[in-house]
Amino acid sequence: MSQHFQFQLTATDGLARRGEITMPRGNVRTPAFMPVGTAGTVKAMYLDQVRDLGSDIILGNVYHLMLRPGAERVARLGGLHEFARWPHPILTDSGGFQVMSLAALRKLDEKGVKFRSHLDGSEHALTPERSIEIQGLLDSDIQMQLDECIRLPAERAEIERAMEMSLRWAERCAVAFGDQPGKAMFGIVQGGDLIDLRIRSAERLAAMDLKGYAVGGLAVGEPQAVMLATLDETLPVLPTKKPRYLMGVGTPQDILRSVARGIDMFDCVMPTRSGRHGLAFTRFGKVNLKNARHAEDSRPLDETSDCPASRDYSRAYLHHLVRANEALASMLLTWNNLAYYQSLMAGIRAAIEGGQFEAFAAQTEEDWARGDISPL
Amino acid sequence: MSQHFQFQLTATDGLARRGEITMPRGNVRTPAFMPVGTAGTVKAMYLDQVRDLGSDIILGNVYHLMLRPGAERVARLGGLHEFARWPHPILTDSGGFQVMSLAALRKLDEKGVKFRSHLDGSEHALTPERSIEIQGLLDSDIQMQLDECIRLPAERAEIERAMEMSLRWAERCAVAFGDQPGKAMFGIVQGGDLIDLRIRSAERLAAMDLKGYAVGGLAVGEPQAVMLATLDETLPVLPTKKPRYLMGVGTPQDILRSVARGIDMFDCVMPTRSGRHGLAFTRFGKVNLKNARHAEDSRPLDETSDCPASRDYSRAYLHHLVRANEALASMLLTWNNLAYYQSLMAGIRAAIEGGQFEAFAAQTEEDWARGDISPL
Repeated sequence: MSQHFQFQLTATDGLARRGEITMPRGNVRTPAFMPVGTAGTVKAMYLDQVRDLGSDIILGNVYHLMLRPGAERVARLGGLHEFARWPHPILTDSGGFQVMSLAALRKLDEKGVKFRSHLDGSEHALTPERSIEIQGLLDSDIQMQLDECIRLPAERAEIERAMEMSLRWAERCAVAFGDQPGKAMFGIVQGGDLIDLRIRSAERLAAMDLKGYAVGGLAVGEPQAVMLATLDETLPVLPTKKPRYLMGVGTPQDILRSVARGIDMFDCVMPTRSGRHGLAFTRFGKVNLKNARHAEDSRPLDETSDCPASRDYSRAYLHHLVRANEALASMLLTWNNLAYYQSLMAGIRAAIEGGQFEAFAAQTEEDWARGDISPL
Repeated sequence: MSQHFQFQLTATDGLARRGEITMPRGNVRTPAFMPVGTAGTVKAMYLDQVRDLGSDIILGNVYHLMLRPGAERVARLGGLHEFARWPHPILTDSGGFQVMSLAALRKLDEKGVKFRSHLDGSEHALTPERSIEIQGLLDSDIQMQLDECIRLPAERAEIERAMEMSLRWAERCAVAFGDQPGKAMFGIVQGGDLIDLRIRSAERLAAMDLKGYAVGGLAVGEPQAVMLATLDETLPVLPTKKPRYLMGVGTPQDILRSVARGIDMFDCVMPTRSGRHGLAFTRFGKVNLKNARHAEDSRPLDETSDCPASRDYSRAYLHHLVRANEALASMLLTWNNLAYYQSLMAGIRAAIEGGQFEAFAAQTEEDWARGDISPL
């Protein structure tokens, strides 16, 4: 821990980086996966479990929390850490992404965005300043600039307009955030699938000397190769001494290949959402527990795992729980999935430290490709 | 533990009884509350938590388990204890109650009941012999006779017909169950709201010298006074040396007042189902977490509780989780409710042991009547 937000690279292996963020509320070992705690809860998990799996930081969503229970209310209750009983670091997004994907009747201009809640139709507004204010009310440790995420495919002019406005919003967010030594505000690289715009965005953000940088607007449906190519071109433009966060990514393979290019932080709903839909991540790829092949399979998902959900419950039982739509299905599969994601991150970190990242990545990809154990 | 199913009264206080059932899979301290594990899971709970709350035995439902995953499948997977990872005693109902309340297109005669699954419309049959066979396939420790539960109000002739047939089914179940020293098969007193029929049912079952006796067909909507009056008249007819199980009961007050009349075992979905609907049970009665009065209440449900769900999470957070329909709401409130039920049972048992049951009951009722803590 440290009274100041700091980032130190402790090892590199090729472009892959092993680092440590230090903050008053705790340290974050990078590369880090941040479980998504949308509305003040990582769905179907006790936060003690999330912590025990090796999570140093979780993510909260401004959009969800501003609508319910409301940022001012959370502040009166002592902030998001106190409210949700997570005394460790929290990163909050700016709300921009969910406004675009969830809210109705959006009206966006230079000033900000007005929208109606998907919950009750009530009117709300987000400006760069209000987003930072909300993140302050939540007492978030790492705050994100408000940006405009556009849908692809889009015209160059439209991508450029949104990217340029996002840069101006980054400046406004930086002013609104001000000088908070124990916390950080990250800028977000935009520019769609146009490399020259991505590079311009990264250069301009780098010049702002922010405490960290995110890459946004990726993993929104484009092929993985496009995402990786964008990282290949963009990351060299960002300062090496600042953490790099790839927003909303991704599959275990997305993560492994992005770490190989120099990404330090990830968040994604995939392990939690998939867990609620009967899908398990393991060392040997994805396992669909709905499949009848598991109905009488007394073997666990992964007998070598440290996680009780992965090691102690039969596939037959998990299959039954999924089919019966039991809450315990979501609880166990989310637990398994976050355990797998965090064990992958721990493996990645150890491999970079040991200078073995390439071999680790090759072995990990090989295990995924081999696929699940054969049916009984 | 014992290789033989045995019941010993260790203390009495008025009509209230403190006892111990011993079985190969473990002991059951009575008066006991059995959490309902309908489909091989106590909804929204890890069974380790259920155990840690002081549960000596849980209940499984034949109707649900025979339809999904199927009794023969559970047997091939090692029985219900192995399947659900609960190595302690399990009581199974006979399936009769759910056939009446959930299944479609029932056809009932002396032989048994044919019905269609509420899940997929498939045809199934339950006879007294098949119910015992299924309970054996599940490897249940305490098995229940198949009975006919009729809806009240009903004509005397109809109540009597169903009660008499249930007696004949008890005989058939006893034959089908045979001699299993480590397990028990309980008969079920029926007779609706007609005391003379209840007494006849209890006398005839008592004459069969079964290992335990249940009282069925109560707490199905009648006033509590009717239920208690039925117990007052029926229980003296049952042998004092056998455990007495009041099926499907009930509220904390139902339990307290039934213990006072000599009941030893209870099961009810109330703590689990209420937990999924935003309702918490505490020492001071019921608390509806949906209510806006909790929205900014930073106090826990009960700061004196040993249960983290009751002690460590604010009412404001629980309110938020309930409003947002988050899985954690069900997880925490079910945990709180089962913790309260089991702490009530522990208090009841200690009070009987100490010869203080009447004072304990009076104090407990007084606390409930005082109601929840005042709003902030």
